[in-house]
Amino acid sequence: MEFSSKLLEQAVNEMAQLPGIGKRTALRLVLHLLRQPQEQTRFLTEALTQMREQMKFCTSCHTLSDVEVCSICSNPARNHHVICVVEDVRDVMAIENTQQFKGIYHVLGGKISPIDGIGPSQLHIASLVEKVKTTAVEEVIFALSSTMEGDTTNFYIYKQIQDTGVKTSTIARGIAVGDELEYADEVTLGRSILHRIPFENSLKNN
Amino acid sequence: MEFSSKLLEQAVNEMAQLPGIGKRTALRLVLHLLRQPQEQTRFLTEALTQMREQMKFCTSCHTLSDVEVCSICSNPARNHHVICVVEDVRDVMAIENTQQFKGIYHVLGGKISPIDGIGPSQLHIASLVEKVKTTAVEEVIFALSSTMEGDTTNFYIYKQIQDTGVKTSTIARGIAVGDELEYADEVTLGRSILHRIPFENSLKNN
Repeated sequence: MEFSSKLLEQAVNEMAQLPGIGKRTALRLVLHLLRQPQEQTRFLTEALTQMREQMKFCTSCHTLSDVEVCSICSNPARNHHVICVVEDVRDVMAIENTQQFKGIYHVLGGKISPIDGIGPSQLHIASLVEKVKTTAVEEVIFALSSTMEGDTTNFYIYKQIQDTGVKTSTIARGIAVGDELEYADEVTLGRSILHRIPFENSLKNN
Repeated sequence: MEFSSKLLEQAVNEMAQLPGIGKRTALRLVLHLLRQPQEQTRFLTEALTQMREQMKFCTSCHTLSDVEVCSICSNPARNHHVICVVEDVRDVMAIENTQQFKGIYHVLGGKISPIDGIGPSQLHIASLVEKVKTTAVEEVIFALSSTMEGDTTNFYIYKQIQDTGVKTSTIARGIAVGDELEYADEVTLGRSILHRIPFENSLKNN
């Protein structure tokens, strides 16, 4: 790509560093900013700078937070005896959106993945185990993705806390609401039959 | 979307102002920046700020430029008697990439489009007409998109300069190189037969 301007080239190159943004898309975004009032670029760059420099992680659950202890961990109305273990902050947001969970979270920051060089020590597993052992935790809910890495991570944590006698559970796997049976993969369908629930239970929530 | 952090929410909202970037994509991009070293965010925001604040438009052809007169307009090796009329800087870059054009450009900044409220006065048409009338221009090449707006703009400019006796031309429309005839639309195919060229000419360039 030939640029008529170094400034443009630099901006496009930096923009194209973002995942999923190629050079053409970057050019389109940058030219859009040029057509908008200067304030829009200023607001964008200031928001990104502030976020990157001031963002904290909750000292208790390791989610992204503006303050030392996040609004969920510091909320006395939440059930601090039930911990939902998730991979990253997006999962916290997704579960919060369902409004079905009133406990607290623990963000691991990833999954155990030897192929990517991520071992247990790089994740927030030790602090979770510590929390389970030292505070009155009643249940740990594993809510990681249903992949080999997710299952490995679940099992690794389970092994470390099983002696404490704390109840452990994992979110239900099955056919998504609104999905057609014939298009479901056989592993999911098989599990959904194996882990069927009493019909009355299915009427309680939707 | 529920955010655990105001800083995050702000950054995502600003990012989602960009065209084609929804909230989910914005969140993915912003979380990516959080995982990268602080420098990456700094480089990105600095490049965007510099570009937005320092970018100039070439006083001659109105393309984006770091200096008063762009590198093409100030290049004595280019043929200043042939002007290629394009819509925006991306078209300049696209044509420059072909290395087939040795003249200069004139960037209109858009097309006449009454439906979007864009009239001739909002485009750089007057300065083009002025240039044609006052300097030794030999040919004006219309290289706008082949849409109703593009055709209207071409015709509007043509009407203003036809008295000067300058040669006007438009880029060839036809079947793209590598395309199958059977999938071409009939208007394009019809035009490509109507405006057929001597076979010997097709051997000169590829």
